[in-house]
Amino acid sequence: MTDDPTTLKIGLPKGSLQDPTVDLFRRAGYVIEVSSRNYYPRIDDPALSCVMFRSQEMSRYVEDGVIDLGICGHDWVVENGSDVHEVCELKYSRATTRPAQWVLAVPEESEVSTPEQLAGGIVATELTGTVRRYFEEKGIELRKIEFSWGATEVKARLIDAIVDITETGSSLVANKLRVIDTILTSTTRLIANQQTWADPAKRARIEDLALLLQGAIAARGRVGLKLNVPREKLEAVLGLLPAAKSPTVNELADPAWVAIEIIVERRTERELVPRLHRAGATDVFSYPLQSVI
Amino acid sequence: MTDDPTTLKIGLPKGSLQDPTVDLFRRAGYVIEVSSRNYYPRIDDPALSCVMFRSQEMSRYVEDGVIDLGICGHDWVVENGSDVHEVCELKYSRATTRPAQWVLAVPEESEVSTPEQLAGGIVATELTGTVRRYFEEKGIELRKIEFSWGATEVKARLIDAIVDITETGSSLVANKLRVIDTILTSTTRLIANQQTWADPAKRARIEDLALLLQGAIAARGRVGLKLNVPREKLEAVLGLLPAAKSPTVNELADPAWVAIEIIVERRTERELVPRLHRAGATDVFSYPLQSVI
Amino acid sequence: MTDDPTTLKIGLPKGSLQDPTVDLFRRAGYVIEVSSRNYYPRIDDPALSCVMFRSQEMSRYVEDGVIDLGICGHDWVVENGSDVHEVCELKYSRATTRPAQWVLAVPEESEVSTPEQLAGGIVATELTGTVRRYFEEKGIELRKIEFSWGATEVKARLIDAIVDITETGSSLVANKLRVIDTILTSTTRLIANQQTWADPAKRARIEDLALLLQGAIAARGRVGLKLNVPREKLEAVLGLLPAAKSPTVNELADPAWVAIEIIVERRTERELVPRLHRAGATDVFSYPLQSVI
Amino acid sequence: MTDDPTTLKIGLPKGSLQDPTVDLFRRAGYVIEVSSRNYYPRIDDPALSCVMFRSQEMSRYVEDGVIDLGICGHDWVVENGSDVHEVCELKYSRATTRPAQWVLAVPEESEVSTPEQLAGGIVATELTGTVRRYFEEKGIELRKIEFSWGATEVKARLIDAIVDITETGSSLVANKLRVIDTILTSTTRLIANQQTWADPAKRARIEDLALLLQGAIAARGRVGLKLNVPREKLEAVLGLLPAAKSPTVNELADPAWVAIEIIVERRTERELVPRLHRAGATDVFSYPLQSVI
Amino acid sequence: MTDDPTTLKIGLPKGSLQDPTVDLFRRAGYVIEVSSRNYYPRIDDPALSCVMFRSQEMSRYVEDGVIDLGICGHDWVVENGSDVHEVCELKYSRATTRPAQWVLAVPEESEVSTPEQLAGGIVATELTGTVRRYFEEKGIELRKIEFSWGATEVKARLIDAIVDITETGSSLVANKLRVIDTILTSTTRLIANQQTWADPAKRARIEDLALLLQGAIAARGRVGLKLNVPREKLEAVLGLLPAAKSPTVNELADPAWVAIEIIVERRTERELVPRLHRAGATDVFSYPLQSVI
Amino acid sequence: MTDDPTTLKIGLPKGSLQDPTVDLFRRAGYVIEVSSRNYYPRIDDPALSCVMFRSQEMSRYVEDGVIDLGICGHDWVVENGSDVHEVCELKYSRATTRPAQWVLAVPEESEVSTPEQLAGGIVATELTGTVRRYFEEKGIELRKIEFSWGATEVKARLIDAIVDITETGSSLVANKLRVIDTILTSTTRLIANQQTWADPAKRARIEDLALLLQGAIAARGRVGLKLNVPREKLEAVLGLLPAAKSPTVNELADPAWVAIEIIVERRTERELVPRLHRAGATDVFSYPLQSVI
Repeated sequence: MTDDPTTLKIGLPKGSLQDPTVDLFRRAGYVIEVSSRNYYPRIDDPALSCVMFRSQEMSRYVEDGVIDLGICGHDWVVENGSDVHEVCELKYSRATTRPAQWVLAVPEESEVSTPEQLAGGIVATELTGTVRRYFEEKGIELRKIEFSWGATEVKARLIDAIVDITETGSSLVANKLRVIDTILTSTTRLIANQQTWADPAKRARIEDLALLLQGAIAARGRVGLKLNVPREKLEAVLGLLPAAKSPTVNELADPAWVAIEIIVERRTERELVPRLHRAGATDVFSYPLQSVI
Repeated sequence: MTDDPTTLKIGLPKGSLQDPTVDLFRRAGYVIEVSSRNYYPRIDDPALSCVMFRSQEMSRYVEDGVIDLGICGHDWVVENGSDVHEVCELKYSRATTRPAQWVLAVPEESEVSTPEQLAGGIVATELTGTVRRYFEEKGIELRKIEFSWGATEVKARLIDAIVDITETGSSLVANKLRVIDTILTSTTRLIANQQTWADPAKRARIEDLALLLQGAIAARGRVGLKLNVPREKLEAVLGLLPAAKSPTVNELADPAWVAIEIIVERRTERELVPRLHRAGATDVFSYPLQSVI
Repeated sequence: MTDDPTTLKIGLPKGSLQDPTVDLFRRAGYVIEVSSRNYYPRIDDPALSCVMFRSQEMSRYVEDGVIDLGICGHDWVVENGSDVHEVCELKYSRATTRPAQWVLAVPEESEVSTPEQLAGGIVATELTGTVRRYFEEKGIELRKIEFSWGATEVKARLIDAIVDITETGSSLVANKLRVIDTILTSTTRLIANQQTWADPAKRARIEDLALLLQGAIAARGRVGLKLNVPREKLEAVLGLLPAAKSPTVNELADPAWVAIEIIVERRTERELVPRLHRAGATDVFSYPLQSVI
Repeated sequence: MTDDPTTLKIGLPKGSLQDPTVDLFRRAGYVIEVSSRNYYPRIDDPALSCVMFRSQEMSRYVEDGVIDLGICGHDWVVENGSDVHEVCELKYSRATTRPAQWVLAVPEESEVSTPEQLAGGIVATELTGTVRRYFEEKGIELRKIEFSWGATEVKARLIDAIVDITETGSSLVANKLRVIDTILTSTTRLIANQQTWADPAKRARIEDLALLLQGAIAARGRVGLKLNVPREKLEAVLGLLPAAKSPTVNELADPAWVAIEIIVERRTERELVPRLHRAGATDVFSYPLQSVI
Repeated sequence: MTDDPTTLKIGLPKGSLQDPTVDLFRRAGYVIEVSSRNYYPRIDDPALSCVMFRSQEMSRYVEDGVIDLGICGHDWVVENGSDVHEVCELKYSRATTRPAQWVLAVPEESEVSTPEQLAGGIVATELTGTVRRYFEEKGIELRKIEFSWGATEVKARLIDAIVDITETGSSLVANKLRVIDTILTSTTRLIANQQTWADPAKRARIEDLALLLQGAIAARGRVGLKLNVPREKLEAVLGLLPAAKSPTVNELADPAWVAIEIIVERRTERELVPRLHRAGATDVFSYPLQSVI
Repeated sequence: MTDDPTTLKIGLPKGSLQDPTVDLFRRAGYVIEVSSRNYYPRIDDPALSCVMFRSQEMSRYVEDGVIDLGICGHDWVVENGSDVHEVCELKYSRATTRPAQWVLAVPEESEVSTPEQLAGGIVATELTGTVRRYFEEKGIELRKIEFSWGATEVKARLIDAIVDITETGSSLVANKLRVIDTILTSTTRLIANQQTWADPAKRARIEDLALLLQGAIAARGRVGLKLNVPREKLEAVLGLLPAAKSPTVNELADPAWVAIEIIVERRTERELVPRLHRAGATDVFSYPLQSVI
């Protein structure tokens, strides 16, 4: 990594978020070259330099100033108790848009149905600090909180309960576990070192980066939609469009027609297009977007 | 699968069409999550539920009402003799746009050149019912029609003839086989259960889905093309454009120029663009499409 | 390959450039089907036929007229001393836009720092002809120039020096080598047989193909950018846009606003978008391009 | 395949048994070269020629005399009703030594617990003939027996019951199915065409091949075990050895000691060795076997 | 896992040791079936049941009695401070027979050459407890010991020093690190729960298992060597053999010759065989071993 | 690589022979650790050091003394015209024991059937020097001999003929080529630098290594065979055994029986075992070998 003080040092998450992160930056206009042997990916912007960390340790290196910025889950900021600035949410993981949840779970057949019943028991989790605080706040005393090195869900039948992360719940179902409480809800965040954030020039650059990353995320779930409408049906067609955003209406050479262009969510598109078609719109087509501010 | 009677149950084809089908739905605005262990993919539309079947058995489950809709080859609708409604063609397989053909083939060196010469012989095929009807209609009596569990083409030299599917003919060439007749031509179809189709509300929803899927297929072979033209060259440029579709011509701030936008086939684009360039168009560019109705 | 004299025979590079080349043609509007067993890919244009060669031998087959056109590195045109026409550069390799360099390198710890100190030594390289000419021109006599069958960089410590290709320099770093001179700089080229190029009809077709390929390359690093601007801020916004290219400004139904559309480089976009946002532009979005002439 | 009438034509099973079969022949002294593109593997014995078929269709080609010998499951001999000679069992599949079972299964939550309760229902299976005979013999009339193209176990919840193959039962557990009857038990067999088997010379060669294949299978679960014993402890040590097989006892140069060598099952070895050690045996070691007749 | 109190519950290490462990048990006479989805592998011995844990957490589950036995590195027994019985060493990892070492390392260019110079600095490691004790014993106060989630070696340049595991040192070389001290040396161990070990019947069974596993390990690096020797050269030949182990000499039918059989290390074999050959031994051959007690 | 003058530096072939070579050394008693990034594999013998070269360039580095020994094809020794000592043949490639052949081949449909008819034509080959000498010796003048960078067989239809390597002929068949002459036959060799070979101490060590490598190769195609025979059938059984090698006959405790042990080829085993069985031998079993001198 560079020692140039004007360069922003950014930590990118290794692991399952690595490829989506490189893709997110690509859609935001940056080329990041990651090689399997190297933890310092190249980025085509001399004002940025990158390093890869596991999401779990990111906030500690941001807090210490080893890096200025990092991308990681909110859960690990909490777990590490790191004093960092959370710039914005970045909802870009591929599989789902649901936030991740850390849940307290027991085997389906267990008689435990409340946290209180775990008093004196053993709980395994990767998030030991957060789980400790959770039980302390409830005044429940456990025998042990074991740090779990992965595959936490299979341990539920060996001890008393686990606290594990879940997005879709499918791993819980596959392991026949029952959730008895949700301990923490988490999404991915862009976080900044407090001193970096306090520097106005750096803060402006971070805000620009956040704008670009959020623009790229917004674009993925949206399309540009174009259609031509006879002037007399314009009002009817405009009535079908989502209210939140006013469409761009522009003139055509043929004065009897106007062209409409609007950015819509992909889920809206699939309901809207058949209706527009029935309402007399012609030349309806949609196209993918790169970025939407 | 749900038991909600308003949900449309749709069968998606396992096998070589699986990934292209998920991609087709994605381009039509749906997110389908397939996991390798699960035959019930999630779809982000509560009004649809999905199950995966092999293309060969799809029409039987649609006919029986186990599912409302299915995507499969016309060939297996015919082979199964299923009473289903074929909603529309869906030409979306990746490799080629040619329809698949089931051909009667013999080794290059065989003396057989007509179906009649196969009387008393053995024919192997995956499509035994269709082949049986073919020979019955011609009044040719075979010794046996053997059901072939894959790799049919390599059996041609062990018995008398085979009936196998081919798209490009390359497998026939590689196995040195000679086609002596085409028995069935097939493309992929969206098929519906007859009762479902008879229900007007469900039929309208199926027609909307068909519109979206066909829009996504149409978009793949097309691009949006934009160019600016000096007003005095407008007529010449318009003369170069495909007649079928009128372009959108709109005004620019500079009154000496107009902007033209048109959807063209990708094959047309590659011939058109050099000509437009020579005809005085400037700022010619094209962009990919998501959907074209 | 066809024997039709009007068909243009084009050689595509096998190896690391193969997939990017197929992708480049796809973006230029052509579908090429490559099968792993076959050196004659299909292309969906009856006026073209394809064959795959290694980049190293391409220019020899173009020179001999076995093929009309080829895509290969300038370095191997030079090395082979082939008499061909270089139609245009095609900068489309994925990893980087830097040209490749053939460098004379020695181990970091070597005492050699000038080519002259290699007199009497052994140099290994894949580019023996070019290296021979390089040393001859300098009047330096080597003991041997060894043809290296790959992994040239690891031989530097076994003999005296190597001449190897590098794009990013990372292989040199990994092998702890030091560059003492650059012998040849190279980019990918479209090359044509001299007789084919001399035929006006064929030359026109080659120029059209070059236009399409270059249009596809240009599109990859650019996006279409759209924004709406209040008429009173138009001037300020226009002042922010890159000077080289005038934007398309068009009228909206609401006369207080105008719409701006412009093609910009992706690197420009990421700097421009935050500024446009601050300057009062709304509905700023960008979309990917297929081709830009 | 050859037309030489003295060559034995043998069908090898494609699919999950393919690699274990090649390995079995290798251990029996044959080198078989399978290439992914070719259904006629080479074997280093001019008196044999090979072809690959799916296990399901093997017995039909053996019955018809297309091949002399085949290796396939007993289940498909029964299903096809083929008139072939079953030469011997070959228990060599890798994962387990349990025979495969075709079971009638329903969802765990189904109310069905006897075959009779399925009257009027739909059953899906790959083994339609055998299932038809099973229900006919019981006098139970079904609505339909559907041929299932794979993934039969996931269909149990869509129709009424399935008949599917299982070795360990783990797929049944994973799909939460309950077995209500076993319809057929099957192991792998070497089968011969009846006419080939009736030919004494060919039959002798088949018996030799069976001997070698069975010798290779027997060797896999056994080891050669050697130990030295003081003469006075010989009787005690011999008393520990399995009774079925008398050990080879031989003289050593030192008359106070004898050497014992015996072939034992691997499961026996692991219990025997610690006991022999305690009984005074020294230099105990075991070695792998290639073949045991 | 079973609840049968006579069953020994054994923890097998997940990760890089998983395949070698299954292979070790196979060579010791056990078949373990691991499926990728399941943490409870089957073993063909009803008196054993298996579960997979990461090496890091093994000793904690053995200490707590969740399992009776485990296989893991000595380092993690120390790190966890677990009160367990170390039954024996098991040197069976594939790549090397060197013990693993946890070393304190700094960048090559660092000025730090003693642990004392790290006072006030940050050290990253996966083995935080052991590292804490190490520095405490030396009376050196650090600013922080950071738990490192993998890729520890690349962090050496971001903070002050790391403590990481190394077998061959190649990762240290690749990352240009310099070792300043070795903190812990570790090999793989079979460990037992203290109560289980105190039970004489269980202890005997564990000792038998240890004997078999060690026998399988010993066999891997050895071969059985056989040779025939003319009686008059016997003494000379015996003189060449390793002294540690007396060979088995036995009589042949031809009284002029004797046969010698001996177990030798593979490294010895390669030096011994050429010498035996020169000394007049004939029919020299070696064979692989399964187990050597 | 080391600079110790007593260390033998050995070149191992990269490419298709790499894995078989590592396996050959393993069977000869050496552990070689190859890492994908490193051209200097470790070997567990301090008196040897290894480096990987392509077979094509091996003999040049042996000739120059960069290495003392190498393993490569005889063809490339000839092609390079290298002055090296060929120590022995090493027939260990996996697929086949046939020697490789460099053949002059033309398309099946070509009118060329003798080398003379190629006068004035173009021939492509990887072995340009050898091909040049071949045609010069025959007094045939070609237009060009093109160096071919792989996939030579597909070029036969673009030029006049090719010279390519073949083991089984299957690539020639697949490309529909016809052989018109064989130019060179080649097997793998252990080669030594002439000066190294002239040094008696080093030569002795090379001869030992050759003995071990050849012993490992001999073992692969052979097994140890053991059987017990009643004394009265001994003569009959001995009569069945291969004459070349006298078996070891030894006494058993039971004087009515003798034990026979013999090394036989695997091809012999499969014919011999059924015969021995019929001749009254009992306890017949075979076991794999590591090395046979």
